[in-house]
Amino acid sequence: MNTERIHFRKVSVVGVGLIGGSLAIVLKEKGLCDTVVGVGRGTENLRTAERLGIIDSYTTDIAEGVRDSDLVFISVPVLSIAKVVKEAAPHLKKGCIVTDAGSVKGGVVAEVDPLMPEGVFFVGGHPIAGTEHSGASAAFGTLFHGRKCILTPTGDTDPGALRKVKAMWEAAGSEVVVMDPCTHDITVAAISHLPHVVAYTPVNTVADIEEMNHDVLAYSAGGFKDFTRIASSSPEMWRDICVVNKYALLEVIEDFQNRLGRIREHIEKEDLDEIQREFERAKKVRDSLKE
Amino acid sequence: MNTERIHFRKVSVVGVGLIGGSLAIVLKEKGLCDTVVGVGRGTENLRTAERLGIIDSYTTDIAEGVRDSDLVFISVPVLSIAKVVKEAAPHLKKGCIVTDAGSVKGGVVAEVDPLMPEGVFFVGGHPIAGTEHSGASAAFGTLFHGRKCILTPTGDTDPGALRKVKAMWEAAGSEVVVMDPCTHDITVAAISHLPHVVAYTPVNTVADIEEMNHDVLAYSAGGFKDFTRIASSSPEMWRDICVVNKYALLEVIEDFQNRLGRIREHIEKEDLDEIQREFERAKKVRDSLKE
Repeated sequence: MNTERIHFRKVSVVGVGLIGGSLAIVLKEKGLCDTVVGVGRGTENLRTAERLGIIDSYTTDIAEGVRDSDLVFISVPVLSIAKVVKEAAPHLKKGCIVTDAGSVKGGVVAEVDPLMPEGVFFVGGHPIAGTEHSGASAAFGTLFHGRKCILTPTGDTDPGALRKVKAMWEAAGSEVVVMDPCTHDITVAAISHLPHVVAYTPVNTVADIEEMNHDVLAYSAGGFKDFTRIASSSPEMWRDICVVNKYALLEVIEDFQNRLGRIREHIEKEDLDEIQREFERAKKVRDSLKE
Repeated sequence: MNTERIHFRKVSVVGVGLIGGSLAIVLKEKGLCDTVVGVGRGTENLRTAERLGIIDSYTTDIAEGVRDSDLVFISVPVLSIAKVVKEAAPHLKKGCIVTDAGSVKGGVVAEVDPLMPEGVFFVGGHPIAGTEHSGASAAFGTLFHGRKCILTPTGDTDPGALRKVKAMWEAAGSEVVVMDPCTHDITVAAISHLPHVVAYTPVNTVADIEEMNHDVLAYSAGGFKDFTRIASSSPEMWRDICVVNKYALLEVIEDFQNRLGRIREHIEKEDLDEIQREFERAKKVRDSLKE
């Protein structure tokens, strides 16, 4: 690996949850920084992070937290990223690199890029990792091992900063992929956001029928449970993602609706060949995925 | 348990696959019959079943296979059930009980009930059990343990025959639930058939985007895999189920489409409250299911 050697003196992690906390652990364990400051709204989670040795100190004041940092990692809900950057920007030192973990990139990058002061560099990022747990106490140093991390530079992105952020994620064990923000957004809309929106919906269809006095849920087997597991995800987080990735998501929802509408017509017409053709194509694609 | 004591002299299992084979194993292991004849189209699977001791003998001739039987269990694809019954009916002895394992009941019961000769009794059934494997070699005696089995008697169903079929499934370890065929069909349409139809569709949406030269599938994580696992199911089987359970399925697809259409509107309008309300309702229902 011709990975760039990196070392940051001071790192600020804004949002010390599962993602932010896990990256802090990596940076400290690998000796990639001297000190990590945690920045957040609530002191309870920050105190936990300090007690667990994930961060060295903490503050609830963004200006204080990012002052004099070499790297600011923003790992807050996607709708809050621009707000955090706005508050932090006047206090960033020259040469500082700002990067994030937002699961939508087009809107975030477009909002954040122009907020960067002269000599401060933003690199949009999205580590594709997570568990069903959250908070600093859920963080662990191997969360990013073997996972993909997408970086989304634009024409404004400093190549040196991009190289350093790439090296950081590679040190965390991730495979880094670089793509433009729009390609990123349509990719995650199809592979992640559409499945979530769609998984919530049949659960509510079942709930509708349950309310008509049919005891439907009692007959759910493994298939239904697998299919709807992601409907247990955080409603707040997915609500935000739906709105932030609105255009890409609406595009894939439309493709989905058209396809389902066609299947429905085939069922109405009892067109066995067309139904089978559609199902076979899906089975072939699905079977190609490694479990 | 005030389970009826049952004993059949000769049992015919038409379709010695996972379900038929597993029931044959139960009947023999529990001493509920003297002999089991396997009936099928291909001799290879029947030979395997005989070699494994699942059945005592076999034939590819339905008339011969069901002659003089006390119980005929039909475990063939749902579109073939009525055809099998038509062929078998003239050869059934008085007092014979015919039952099936079809995953759709309304159409099957309506077709099969009138085919029964005087003194022969049909009881519609649907054991809710299965694995991803098929064929006699996949059969095992505990397949029905702790699973639900739905029986769907009509006004024409003989109460004594119903009691015996119920006792048989209880002996196999199942919890037997009795409901009318229409309630059964809307229940399985919501909890099983809709999820399958819906799971095939986003896989094809992803395939559409993949064909536009975006390497989308490489970013699939556990959520997408869980969500689409049932899209690996047999296209032929699900094609048939879609058509046989057409009316109930179209009803739940419509409810699903309406709900998804509303979610899409909420996303277009960026109505965070409405999106969250929908997701929260689904999460609450999903969280209530035991894994």
